[in-house]
Amino acid sequence: MQYHLNGFRPGDPDVFEAARDRNRADAAKGLPDKVDVLIVGCGPAGLCLAAQLARFPEIDTRIVEQKPGPMEKGQADGINLRSMEMFQAFGFADKVKREAYWVNETTFWKPDPGNPRHIFRCGRVQDVEDGLSEMPHTLMNQARVHDMFLDIMRNSPSRLEPDYSLQVQDLVVDPDAGDYPVTVRLVRTDPDRDGQTGTIRARYVVGCDGARSSVREAIGGRLHGDSAHQAWGVMDVLAVSDFPDIRMKSIIQSNREGNILVLPREGGHMVRLYVELDKLSEGERVGSRDLTVDHMIAAANRILVPYSIDVKEVVWWSVYEIGHRLTDKFDDVPAEEVATRTPRVFTAGDACHTHSPKAGQGMNVSMGDTFNLGWKLISVLTGRSAPDLLHSYSRERRAAAQGLIDYDHKWARIVSAPPGETDPEDADMPRFQRQFIEGGRFTAGLTIRYEPSALIGDGAWQGLATGFEIGTRFHSAPVIRLADAKPMHLGHTVEADARWRLYAFNGAGDPHARDSAMHRLCDFLENDPTSPILTHTPHGGDVDAVISLFAVFQQGFRDLAFEKMPALLRPNVGRYGLVEYEKVFCADLKSGDDIFDMRGIDRDKGCLVIVRPDQHVANVLPLEARKDLSKFFSGFLLPA
Amino acid sequence: MQYHLNGFRPGDPDVFEAARDRNRADAAKGLPDKVDVLIVGCGPAGLCLAAQLARFPEIDTRIVEQKPGPMEKGQADGINLRSMEMFQAFGFADKVKREAYWVNETTFWKPDPGNPRHIFRCGRVQDVEDGLSEMPHTLMNQARVHDMFLDIMRNSPSRLEPDYSLQVQDLVVDPDAGDYPVTVRLVRTDPDRDGQTGTIRARYVVGCDGARSSVREAIGGRLHGDSAHQAWGVMDVLAVSDFPDIRMKSIIQSNREGNILVLPREGGHMVRLYVELDKLSEGERVGSRDLTVDHMIAAANRILVPYSIDVKEVVWWSVYEIGHRLTDKFDDVPAEEVATRTPRVFTAGDACHTHSPKAGQGMNVSMGDTFNLGWKLISVLTGRSAPDLLHSYSRERRAAAQGLIDYDHKWARIVSAPPGETDPEDADMPRFQRQFIEGGRFTAGLTIRYEPSALIGDGAWQGLATGFEIGTRFHSAPVIRLADAKPMHLGHTVEADARWRLYAFNGAGDPHARDSAMHRLCDFLENDPTSPILTHTPHGGDVDAVISLFAVFQQGFRDLAFEKMPALLRPNVGRYGLVEYEKVFCADLKSGDDIFDMRGIDRDKGCLVIVRPDQHVANVLPLEARKDLSKFFSGFLLPA
Ligand SMILES: Cc1cc2nc3c(=O)[nH]c(=O)nc-3n(C[C@H](O)[C@H](O)[C@H](O)COP(=O)(O)OP(=O)(O)OC[C@H]3O[C@@H](n4cnc5c(N)ncnc54)[C@H](O)[C@@H]3O)c2cc1C
Ligand SMILES: Cc1cc2nc3c(=O)[nH]c(=O)nc-3n(C[C@H](O)[C@H](O)[C@H](O)COP(=O)(O)OP(=O)(O)OC[C@H]3O[C@@H](n4cnc5c(N)ncnc54)[C@H](O)[C@@H]3O)c2cc1C
Repeated sequence: MQYHLNGFRPGDPDVFEAARDRNRADAAKGLPDKVDVLIVGCGPAGLCLAAQLARFPEIDTRIVEQKPGPMEKGQADGINLRSMEMFQAFGFADKVKREAYWVNETTFWKPDPGNPRHIFRCGRVQDVEDGLSEMPHTLMNQARVHDMFLDIMRNSPSRLEPDYSLQVQDLVVDPDAGDYPVTVRLVRTDPDRDGQTGTIRARYVVGCDGARSSVREAIGGRLHGDSAHQAWGVMDVLAVSDFPDIRMKSIIQSNREGNILVLPREGGHMVRLYVELDKLSEGERVGSRDLTVDHMIAAANRILVPYSIDVKEVVWWSVYEIGHRLTDKFDDVPAEEVATRTPRVFTAGDACHTHSPKAGQGMNVSMGDTFNLGWKLISVLTGRSAPDLLHSYSRERRAAAQGLIDYDHKWARIVSAPPGETDPEDADMPRFQRQFIEGGRFTAGLTIRYEPSALIGDGAWQGLATGFEIGTRFHSAPVIRLADAKPMHLGHTVEADARWRLYAFNGAGDPHARDSAMHRLCDFLENDPTSPILTHTPHGGDVDAVISLFAVFQQGFRDLAFEKMPALLRPNVGRYGLVEYEKVFCADLKSGDDIFDMRGIDRDKGCLVIVRPDQHVANVLPLEARKDLSKFFSGFLLPA
Repeated sequence: MQYHLNGFRPGDPDVFEAARDRNRADAAKGLPDKVDVLIVGCGPAGLCLAAQLARFPEIDTRIVEQKPGPMEKGQADGINLRSMEMFQAFGFADKVKREAYWVNETTFWKPDPGNPRHIFRCGRVQDVEDGLSEMPHTLMNQARVHDMFLDIMRNSPSRLEPDYSLQVQDLVVDPDAGDYPVTVRLVRTDPDRDGQTGTIRARYVVGCDGARSSVREAIGGRLHGDSAHQAWGVMDVLAVSDFPDIRMKSIIQSNREGNILVLPREGGHMVRLYVELDKLSEGERVGSRDLTVDHMIAAANRILVPYSIDVKEVVWWSVYEIGHRLTDKFDDVPAEEVATRTPRVFTAGDACHTHSPKAGQGMNVSMGDTFNLGWKLISVLTGRSAPDLLHSYSRERRAAAQGLIDYDHKWARIVSAPPGETDPEDADMPRFQRQFIEGGRFTAGLTIRYEPSALIGDGAWQGLATGFEIGTRFHSAPVIRLADAKPMHLGHTVEADARWRLYAFNGAGDPHARDSAMHRLCDFLENDPTSPILTHTPHGGDVDAVISLFAVFQQGFRDLAFEKMPALLRPNVGRYGLVEYEKVFCADLKSGDDIFDMRGIDRDKGCLVIVRPDQHVANVLPLEARKDLSKFFSGFLLPA
C-alpha cells in the first residue's frame, strides 16, 4: 500500500487525512438541506457505495438508515471469490481472510442405500476450482462486512458516518429542476423523536433499502418473480454435534425429513444450518406458519440421523421462503425516456432483485451493484464524465441480476429435488453434486460479463490476451514488481478509487529499446495531443489521476533496469513530485507462474488491457492501437 | 483465529471482552499503590511485554513511560523474520505484511574500477534464503510496531493503557519483604505536574527503559563494551533520486567519501539512509561534533556520484556512534546468589544490551527479550511455576545478546572496511557481500538457540525431527487442517498466550487404529495419573489451558476421519463444552510441501515436538517416551 506521498503522517496509514471542515462529529449535527448523493440503507449495497464515495470529500455524501445503529448479527454470510477480490481493492481482504471461515471442501450426504433412515457421505469436492482466483471463498457474518465498510468511511477524508434512525418515506424527482432535482421526505424513528419529519434535496439518491424498498416504490419500480412455496429456516448456533462434517460446507439430503445445508462459520465454533421446512401451499406466506427455532432444531436432528446436534446457544435465526424477484429498471428513467433524460434515482441490492440464499448471493451481488455504480457517480460528480454514463448502471447490473436469478432458479430446484433423482451418468452422484461442481464459477461471482457498450470493447483483439476475457473481472496473476523485486498480485494494483488502469504487456524484443512498442506507447500517452491521458486528466493533477498506466514484461526482474523505463512508467507525483515506483512488473519466472502463460498473452505482440475502476476488463487492444485507445476513452470521459 | 467460544459477541473479534472492573478509563485514574508487574518504558521491549501480560487480567500490570505519549517516528525500522513470526503469534503479522516495505533483494555497490569516483552495482542477492521462514523480512517505522502492541493492550481483557509522563527515578528491592518487595520512586514529567513524585510497590519490575536505564542503574547493572569511534547518521526522508536501487536495500561503498546503507521504507516513497560520517578520535563522543542533517545529505550526494538525491522532506534524523554494550546480568540477582533467591527486577532490550543498528537488531532483540520473559512471569504469577523459573530469563537472553554482539562486531568492521578489501576468493565480490549472504540467518534472528536446561532438552532424540532443532524457534511448515481442510501453517497455531504446545507427528501404521502410537499417547495424556496435562492443568479448566496437544498425520486429509481421532484431539472446551476442531493436521500432499520431508521427521516412528510459549523448540521425544515427557514438564511446572 502507498502512503506518505504528500508528507509523512504518523499513525495508521488506513486513516486518511480529514478533508478541511470534515470531522467525525459532523454526523451528529444532522443532515444538511442539500447533498450530492443520498444513500438510503446501511446494508452491504449502501455501505459499499458509501465507502467509495467517502474517498472523495468534494462529493457531499450522506447515508441514512432507519435502524438505530449498525447491525450486529444475522442475514447473509457467504463471501464469494468476486467479493473477496473487491475487498482487496478496498484494502480489507487480509482482515477478512484472518477472521472468516474458509470454504475449502464441500461434502455431500444422502440416504444410505443400505439403511435409508441414515445419511452417509456420498461425495466430496474441493469447493473452489484451482486457479479460479487468488482469494479463498469465505463465510462471515454480514455485520462484520458492514463494520469493515464503516471503518473505511470513518477513516476516509470525508469522515463519513451514517445517520441512523432516519427512514425515507418517499421522494419525488423533478426532471426540470436544476441542481438538486430529488426531494426526499424523511421521518425519524428514534424513540425520543419518533415521527419527526423533514426533507432533503439531493442530486442523486441511491435506494439500498432492501427488499421492501421505499425508493423503488417511489420511482414506480415493481419486483416481478415468483416464490418457490418452500419454507426454509436458517439458524446460527453454537452447538455440539457428532456429525463428522460439521466444519465442512455440507449439503445433506435425507430420505424423508428434508434437507440441510451446513455452513461452518467464523471463529471455529459457530455454524449456520439452513433447514428445509414444510412446503407452503399456493398463495401461502411463510409468516402464516408458526415456525420457531425449536422446529428447526428438531428438524435438523431428524435429518441428521444417525448423528445429532445439541444446540447450546442460538445466535440468530430466521424463517423465510425462497423468492426470486427483479425490477424492470434499476433507475428512474423508463426505457422510452433513456434518450432524453439521465437517471437521478437508483436502486441497488435487494431493493431491485432478491435471490434464494442457497447460492449465497444476496450480499455479494448487492455489493457488486454499488461497486459498479460508485465509480460512475464519482466520474459524473467530479466532472470526468457526462451524466449519460449513469444509464449503464441499470443496463449492466440488471442483466447480471437476471443471470443470477436464472441460475438461482435452477439451483433451488436441484437442492429441493427428491434424493432419488440421481444423475443418470453417475448413479452414485446426486444431481445436485454435479451441478454444484459445474456451478462453481457462477456462485463464485465470476461469470458476470458485461455486454459490449461504450464501456466494454467488442472483443476484436481478445486473442491477444485470451485469459483476460473482456467484460468479466480482471483475473489477477502473480508478478514481481521491478523497483523492489516484490512478489505480488498484479490485480492488487487496483484500488477502489475510481481510476481506470491500463496494463501494457510488452511483446518480444529488447524491453529497453527506445523504439520498442512499450516506449512508443508511453511516448504517445505522454506527448500526443490525442492521448487519452492528456485529454482526460485535469491540468496540474498527477498524470495517473484518471488513467493509470502499468507495464508488465516477460523478462525476469534482474534482467530489467528500472532507470531505462519510459518516463510515464516512473512519473513524478504528489506535492513533492516524488517518483512513483509501483508501475512496472515482471513475470514471476522463479515460481513458474508466468502471467504471460497463465493469461494467454501474445508473447510476440504483447497487448494493452484496459481495466475499469470496478475491476472489469473493458477492452484488450494491440499496443499500437492509438486511435482505438483514444476513441475508447472519449466514449465516456470528457476532455479535462 | 478462534472466538465466540463462550458465546457470540458482536463486533471485532480482536477486541476481547473486558475483564470485570477493567475499562479504558482506568489509566486516567493514575497508578494504584501496588501492582503485580510494573513495566518501565514504552519501547518495543516494554510494549511487547505489556501486550502479553494484558491478556491475563488476573495479573495487575502497569506500564509507565516518561514521554507524554506514544512515539510517532524514528529509531529502528528493521523487522526480521523472527519478529514477523512472533507478530503472527500476536495476530498482527498480516497487518505488518500489508503496511511494511518487504526486503526482497539486497544490492551491492562499489567504486567503478574504470572510474573509481563513480559507484556501480557490483552484485545483488536475494535478501532471504528460500525456505528460511514463511514470513518476509520487512521494514517499518518502530512507532507503528508500538501502535500494534498498544492496540493489543487496549483490546485485551485488561484494557491496558500506558501511564505516560511518569519517570522512574530509582527503586529498591527488599528481598525479605513479602509480596511486594520492590519499591519504585516515580516523578511526573508533564508540564503541569512536573516534579511531583510518588512511590509504587510491585512484585516484579521490568526495566525496558532503554540505553540510559534507571532500572539497570538501580540494580547495579553496568554496560560493558566499546565504541567503534565512528559516527553514523541516519535519516528518514521523502526524496527524489536517480539512484537506480533506491527501492532496494542497497549497501554502497564509495571510493573516498564513505558508505551508505539504503533502506527503502513503508508506503512506497520514504527511504532511510545510513550515512557514514567522520571517524571519531579516541574518547570523543558524537555529540561533540556539530553534525546536522545537511551534513548527511551532502555526504550522501558525494557518495552516490554519479547519482544524486534531492531531499524534499526530512521526516526524522539522528546521529550516533556504533556501540556494542552488554550487562553482566539481566536481573537483580548476582551470580553468587542465584541458588538462594529469585529475581524481582529485570532489564530488557537496550537497557541491558545495545547494538550497532547496521544489522538492524535493536528492536528485534528487545522484543525477543520480553517474549522470553513474558510467559515466565505469567507462569509464576498464575501459580503454574515456581519463581526460580525466572532465573532462566537472564541466562537465555544474555547468551543471545552476547551472540548478537559478537556478530555485530564482525559486521560493523566489515561494513566500515575500505572498499579495496575484496574477498580473496572472488575479486569481484566485496567481502561484506559474502558475509552478508552468510549472515542471513543471523540477521534474520534465526540462529538464537537456547542451551540445554530444565526448559530445553539435551537433543538425545533430535534425530526424530532433524528440522526442528532443539533450542531454536519452531520452524513452521504448511499443513492441512483435518476438520475443515484449510491449508495453513502449523506454526500459526502458536499464539502469544503463555501456553505450551505438543505437536505429535504420527509414524507409520493405521492412523485410526486404537492401538496406534497416537491413540496410546492420547490415552496416556488424558488418563494416566502421571500425565503432564493432568498434573499441571487446573481442575475445571479446559484440558488444553496449560499444555495444548496437536497431531500431524502423514496421510492426506481425505484419507482421515476426524470422528475417529482420540478424544483428546477433539476435546470439549469453554463454557458450553463445544468441540475444539483445530488440533488435527495432515501433510499438504497436493502442494508437495510435505512437512514430514521438510522438517526431517521420522516417518516410521513419528515423534513428539514440545514447543514453548515463545515458539522455541523445547524438546523432541519419541511418541512413547511417557516418563521423559512427564519429567520434562515437572521440571518447571507445579502440580495444579
Ligand atoms: C431477515 C433476513 C435474513 C436473511 N438471511 C439471509 C441468508 O441467510 N443468506 C443470505 O445469503 N442472505 C440472507 N438475507 C439477504 C441478505 O441479507 C441481503 O441479500 C443483503 O443484505 C442485501 O443487501 P442490501 O444492502 O441490498 O439490503 P439490506 O441488507 O436489506 O439493507 C437494507 C437496509 O436499508 C434499511 N432501510 C430499509 N428501508 C429503509 C428506509 N425507508 N429508510 C431508511 N433505511 C431503510 C434497512 O434497515 C437495512 O439496513 C437475509 C435478509 C434478511 C432481511
Ligand atoms: C535516537 C535513537 C535512534 C535510533 N536509531 C536506530 C536505528 O536507526 N536503527 C536501529 O535498528 N535502532 C535504532 N535505535 C535503537 C532502537 O530504537 C532500540 O534498539 C530499541 O528501541 C530498543 O527498544 P527498548 O524497548 O529496549 O528501548 P527504547 O526503545 O529505547 O525504549 C525505552 C523507553 O523507555 C522510556 N524511558 C527511559 N527511561 C525511563 C524512565 N526512567 N522512566 C520511564 N520511562 C523511561 C523511554 O522514553 C523510551 O520510550 C535508535 C535508538 C535511539 C534512541
